[in-house]
Amino acid sequence: MTRHLTLAVCQTGPVPRTASRTETVGRLVQLLERAASQGAQLAVFPELALTTFFPRWAIDDEREIAEFFETEMPGPQTRLVYQAAQRLRIGFAIGYAEQVRDGTRVRRFNTMELVGADGRMLGRYRKVHVPGSAAAFAGVTTHLERRYFEPGDLGFPVFNFDGIRVGLAVCNDRRWPETYRMLCLNGAQVVLIGYNTPAVLEEAPELAHLRMFHNHLPMQAGAYQNTLWIAAAAKAGTEDGQALIGGSCIIAPTGELAALATSLGDEVIVHRIDLGLIDVCRRVNFDFGLYRRPDQYGLIAERAGPP
Amino acid sequence: MTRHLTLAVCQTGPVPRTASRTETVGRLVQLLERAASQGAQLAVFPELALTTFFPRWAIDDEREIAEFFETEMPGPQTRLVYQAAQRLRIGFAIGYAEQVRDGTRVRRFNTMELVGADGRMLGRYRKVHVPGSAAAFAGVTTHLERRYFEPGDLGFPVFNFDGIRVGLAVCNDRRWPETYRMLCLNGAQVVLIGYNTPAVLEEAPELAHLRMFHNHLPMQAGAYQNTLWIAAAAKAGTEDGQALIGGSCIIAPTGELAALATSLGDEVIVHRIDLGLIDVCRRVNFDFGLYRRPDQYGLIAERAGPP
Repeated sequence: MTRHLTLAVCQTGPVPRTASRTETVGRLVQLLERAASQGAQLAVFPELALTTFFPRWAIDDEREIAEFFETEMPGPQTRLVYQAAQRLRIGFAIGYAEQVRDGTRVRRFNTMELVGADGRMLGRYRKVHVPGSAAAFAGVTTHLERRYFEPGDLGFPVFNFDGIRVGLAVCNDRRWPETYRMLCLNGAQVVLIGYNTPAVLEEAPELAHLRMFHNHLPMQAGAYQNTLWIAAAAKAGTEDGQALIGGSCIIAPTGELAALATSLGDEVIVHRIDLGLIDVCRRVNFDFGLYRRPDQYGLIAERAGPP
Repeated sequence: MTRHLTLAVCQTGPVPRTASRTETVGRLVQLLERAASQGAQLAVFPELALTTFFPRWAIDDEREIAEFFETEMPGPQTRLVYQAAQRLRIGFAIGYAEQVRDGTRVRRFNTMELVGADGRMLGRYRKVHVPGSAAAFAGVTTHLERRYFEPGDLGFPVFNFDGIRVGLAVCNDRRWPETYRMLCLNGAQVVLIGYNTPAVLEEAPELAHLRMFHNHLPMQAGAYQNTLWIAAAAKAGTEDGQALIGGSCIIAPTGELAALATSLGDEVIVHRIDLGLIDVCRRVNFDFGLYRRPDQYGLIAERAGPP
C-alpha cells in the first residue's frame, strides 16, 4: 500500500468575467506544470475554476448564464488540462459549473471532479451545501448560488486514486462537520476542497477580521476529528470588484497547517503527505469503530435545525 | 429574553488521592465565592472534580473503588457546594463519579450535573464517549475509564437555566463533532464542559506538543459550527504523578477564545457572554433549518467507523 503521496494545491488569482476560457485554461495548465515539476502526483484547483464567481450577480438572461456552465467535461477548450495531466502524469480535481440534460429538464450543479494521472475522470461530486439564496437582498452580500445550482445529489462519494481513497468537497461544504464525517465514514484518507470566499460580508462587518480564521478552523477540526489529509484551493484576490480570501492550504490529520499559500494570486503549494500519520491519529483518540456511538446521533440525520 | 449571562470557569489544580472530600469541597466553595464576587451567574467545575482522576489506575478492590463514587448528590460532604450556590445566587455544573443502584445491579457513570442558583439540581448528563479501555496495556497511557464507567445513557439533554438553554459534556466528548451537533439540535445556547487531560500520551510522544491545540481546536470548531458559547474547566497540574493540561477557557460562537486560564492551579476566569452573538453567527453562515441536509447524513447515525 502506498504510504506517501505528494499533493499540490493550485490556488488561482481572480478569473475576470472578460477572460476567455482558453486564457483561463492556459493558466491552469501552467499551474499543473509547476505542480508536476515539484513532484506533485495529485493537484487541486478551486471551485468554479474556469470562470468568475458568477453567483455574485443576479443574471436573468439564459444565454448569459449558459456561458458559465460546462455541458461536457472535458470539452473542446478544457481538454487541454486533461491532456496536460496525462502528459505530466499528475491527477487533479477541478471545480466547475456543471449543466446536464435530464430528459427535457436542464439541471445545474456546483461540481468538482477528480481526474486520474491518465487524464480520465475517476469520479464526480456535486456540492451538497449550497449557500446563499435565489434572490438578492439589500445589505446582504450577494451569494446567489441557489439561483443557479441545485443541491448535490451524489452524496459524499470516495474515489480510488492509485490505491488512496480521495473525497471531494466544495466551498461552503467545508464549514459543516457532517461533510468530513460522511467522507470519513465512506473511507476517505484525503479530501480535496475548492472554494471562492468573499473577504467581507455586508451583513456582518463585525466578523470581517475572522474570515480567514473561519476558513481554516473547520478544515483543521475536520482533518483532526476525522484523521484526514486535506488540500484546499482558493480562488483569491479581487475578482470583478469583489475581494476573495486566499489561504489555500494543506492540513495534516493532526489538524496542523502543513503548507499555506502566501499570496492572493496564482500559486502552487506542495506537501509530501505521510498516510501513516492517519493511523497514528486513529490510535491516539479516534478508533471510530470502538468509540463512536451512532445510536446516540439519530437527530443529526433527522432534524435540520434546533426546535 | 435574557441576552447576557456572566459565566465563570472554575479550573482546579490537582486533587491528590490523599485529599479528603471535605478539603476538596472547601476548595470548590472558595472558587464559587471568587466567581460570584466577579459577578458570575453560572460556573463550571472540572470532570471528576471531587477526586483524583482515578481511572489512571487499575484498581480491583471494590471498597477502594467505591470511595471515588458518589451515591447521592448532594451528599453529606458535597452539600456545602450546593448551599454555597444558594447563598451566593450562582448556578454551577460539576463533574463526579456517579454510582446508582438499579435493582441488584450497581451502575457507574462519569457524570456532570447542572445546579440552579437556588441550589437545586436542574439536570444530569452522563458521558457518552467513554475513552480508554478496561485493561491496561504496556506503552499506552493508562486511561481505564471503561473499567469503571458505562457509556452514558441519557443522550445529550439540554436544560433551562433562567431561560437560557444549557447543555453539558465531559472531557473526551469534546473531541467528537456529534456532541456539539446533538446539543445544538436539542436547542443548546451554552455548553459547559469539564475535563482531565494527560499532558503526554506514551503511545504518541510525537504528538505531545499538540495536546493544547487538540484541546482547543475541536471546542473552537464546535462553538463556531454550532453557534454556541462554550465554557470548559480543566483539572490541571501534576496530580498523583501524572501531568494534566490546563487551558480552561470560554469560547464565543465565533470560535474565538474569549477567556483563557493561564495557570495550572485553582483559577477562576469570567466572561460576560452576549447571547445575541449566536443570532449574528446563525445569520451569516449557519441557518441550520435552511442549509443542513439531514437526508444526506444517514451514515453518521448508522455506521461507527469507516469500512
